[in-house]
Amino acid sequence: MSSVTIAVDAMGGDHGPRVTVPAALQVLGRDPDVHIILVGGRADIEEQLRGHRDFGRIAVRHASEVVEMHEPPAAAMRNKKDSSMRVAVDLVKDGHAAACVSAGNTGALMAISRFVLKMLPNIERPAIATILPTIKGHTHVLDLGANVDCTATHLLQFAMMGAMLVSAVENKPAPTVGLLNIGEEAIKGNEVVKKAGELLRASPLNFYGNVEGDDIYKGTTDVVVCDGFVGNVALKTSEGLAQMIATFLREEFKRSWRTRLMGLLASPVLRSFKRRVDHRRYNGASLLGLRGIVIKSHGAADPFAFECAIGRAVEEVRSGVLSRITEQVAFGLEGAA
Amino acid sequence: MSSVTIAVDAMGGDHGPRVTVPAALQVLGRDPDVHIILVGGRADIEEQLRGHRDFGRIAVRHASEVVEMHEPPAAAMRNKKDSSMRVAVDLVKDGHAAACVSAGNTGALMAISRFVLKMLPNIERPAIATILPTIKGHTHVLDLGANVDCTATHLLQFAMMGAMLVSAVENKPAPTVGLLNIGEEAIKGNEVVKKAGELLRASPLNFYGNVEGDDIYKGTTDVVVCDGFVGNVALKTSEGLAQMIATFLREEFKRSWRTRLMGLLASPVLRSFKRRVDHRRYNGASLLGLRGIVIKSHGAADPFAFECAIGRAVEEVRSGVLSRITEQVAFGLEGAA
Repeated sequence: MSSVTIAVDAMGGDHGPRVTVPAALQVLGRDPDVHIILVGGRADIEEQLRGHRDFGRIAVRHASEVVEMHEPPAAAMRNKKDSSMRVAVDLVKDGHAAACVSAGNTGALMAISRFVLKMLPNIERPAIATILPTIKGHTHVLDLGANVDCTATHLLQFAMMGAMLVSAVENKPAPTVGLLNIGEEAIKGNEVVKKAGELLRASPLNFYGNVEGDDIYKGTTDVVVCDGFVGNVALKTSEGLAQMIATFLREEFKRSWRTRLMGLLASPVLRSFKRRVDHRRYNGASLLGLRGIVIKSHGAADPFAFECAIGRAVEEVRSGVLSRITEQVAFGLEGAA
Repeated sequence: MSSVTIAVDAMGGDHGPRVTVPAALQVLGRDPDVHIILVGGRADIEEQLRGHRDFGRIAVRHASEVVEMHEPPAAAMRNKKDSSMRVAVDLVKDGHAAACVSAGNTGALMAISRFVLKMLPNIERPAIATILPTIKGHTHVLDLGANVDCTATHLLQFAMMGAMLVSAVENKPAPTVGLLNIGEEAIKGNEVVKKAGELLRASPLNFYGNVEGDDIYKGTTDVVVCDGFVGNVALKTSEGLAQMIATFLREEFKRSWRTRLMGLLASPVLRSFKRRVDHRRYNGASLLGLRGIVIKSHGAADPFAFECAIGRAVEEVRSGVLSRITEQVAFGLEGAA
C-alpha cells in the first residue's frame, strides 16, 4: 500500500482529543502506511498521546482556536483563521495531507472547505454522501443536508459524484443509481424530482429509476440520490427509529429477573446482532464536489466510530475518488446535459 | 357508546374480502355499537361471511367494479362509478355511513373522496395523517404523500388539521405541533419550511418549533407536520429500516442450533418486543380536509391490521374529529393568517 497522510481536526466533535487521539492511534496501529497530523491545542493533544506507543508516524500541528458546534459557519470561517478545522483543511490545500477528517460543525466544515479548497469545475454545489447498511450489504446516499433547495441539475451532479465515488471505492464500473421518490412510476414526485428523472435517464449513468424510502435499506441500488432536506430527514428518522427499537428491546429484557436471565442466555446472539446493526461502522460522510477529500464524522462519535471515519478518508485517497470525480465532471456532465 | 355505521370497501387492498370481512367481524364482535356495510362483489363477500356468527349488524351493498391497485386515479374516478371504493365513499356522502375505510389505491381513494365529499371550506389540499409509535407513546404525522409541492400555507393548514385531530381523538386541549426540518434553529430549512415556521409562530396553535427526523420517534411533539414528499420518504424509510432490523434479528437467531435454542429460551421476551413494535396496531391513515371521514388502510394489511383501521374510523366518528376540524378551519385560520 502506498503511504497516505491524513489531517485530523483533533478538537472537533463533542469530545475532542479524548476521542480523536485514541482513534488516530488505532488507525496507525493497524495500517503501517498511514501518517496522521493531529491539528489542535498542542497541550490537549499531547496529554492524550502520553503513555501511548509512539508509531513515529504521527505529528502535532498546533492550532489556537476551536470552531464551536453551534457557531454560525460564516463567522467560523471569517474569524477563526487558526481554528483546528481550518488548519486541517489548509493542510489538504497545501498538499501536506491527502485528506482531512473532522467531527466538528458540519456547516462550518462545508463553508471552510469550499472557501479553502474550492469547488470542482462544473459542480455547482457540494454534497454530503454517507454509507448506510442494507439487507444485502450497504448503499451510498447523498445529499444529506448540504443543499436544501436543489434544482434537477444539482441532483444530476450529485448522482454523477455518487456514482464515481462508488465506482472508485468499490471498483464497480457502472454502479446503479436510484432517484429517491414517492413512487416507482416516472410521473411521480415533485417537479424537481420529475425533471431530475429526465436528466438521469438521458445521462450516461446506470440509472435504475425511482426508488422509495424502503429501497434504501433493501439495497435496491448502489447509490440513492435526493436533495439535502429529504436526505437529512431520512437519515435522522432512521437514527430515531433505530434508537427507539434498541430502547424497546433493552426494556423488554430488563422487565424482571426472568427476562434478564433470558437476555443473559441469549447474549451471544444479541451481541452479534448489535455488532451487525452498529451504525458506528458507517461513520464518516464524504463532502463531495470539492478539490480535495474531506470527511465529516458524527459529532457524537466515540473512538471506534471516529477510527472508521479516518479509515474512510484513507480508503478514498487510495482508491483515487477525487481524480475519478474530477475527470467525470470535466467530460461526463456535458454528455449528460 | 352511541351507534356508529362504517362503510368498508371490502374489495380494496392486496387480499380483498379474505382480509376485510374477517376484520369487520372482529370489530363487530368486540364493539356492540358498531354497524358495518361491506361494499363489493356480493358473492365474494358472502363466501367469506359463511359459517361465521351473524351479529345482525352487518349489511352487504353490492358494487360491480373494483379499482385496481395501480389504476390511474382519474381513470378510476371517471370510469368506475360502481366500484366498491366509490360506493363506500358515496355511502358517507349520503349519510348512510359515518365514515368509510379502504385498503385500495391511495391516489384513487383521495381523488374519489375529494370529488364525492368535497373539501372543507378554507382548506386547499387534503392531507394524509398517520400515527407512529414513539419512545413515549405515539405521535401523529402529516402529510404522508397526498401533496408533493406544498406552500407554507398548506403546511399551516395541515398543522391545524393535525392539531384538531389529536385534540378530538386524545382529548388534549392544546396538542404540541412540530415542523419537520433539518435543524432546530428557525433559520434552518428550505424557503417553504422557513415561511411555514413564521406562519405557525403567528398562529394560535401550540407551536413547539422545528423538529428533526429523530424527534418523530422520540415523541417530542403530538403532531409533526411536513410536506407529502418528505413525509412519505420518512415513513417508507422507517418501514425499510424496521424490516432490515427484523430480518437481521431473525437471521442471528437462526444461525445454528445453539442460537435457535437461545431464541427459544428468550421467546417470551422476543414476543413481547415484537408486539410492542407491531406496526399493524398503527394501521389506518386519516384523509383530512374532506367533508367526511375516510380512512386508508395499508394495501398489504392482514385482518388484524385492517381491524385496527376500522377501529380508527370508529374512534374518529365518536370523538367528533370532523366537526372539530370544520369549526377550526372556519374560524381559526383567519386568526392565524
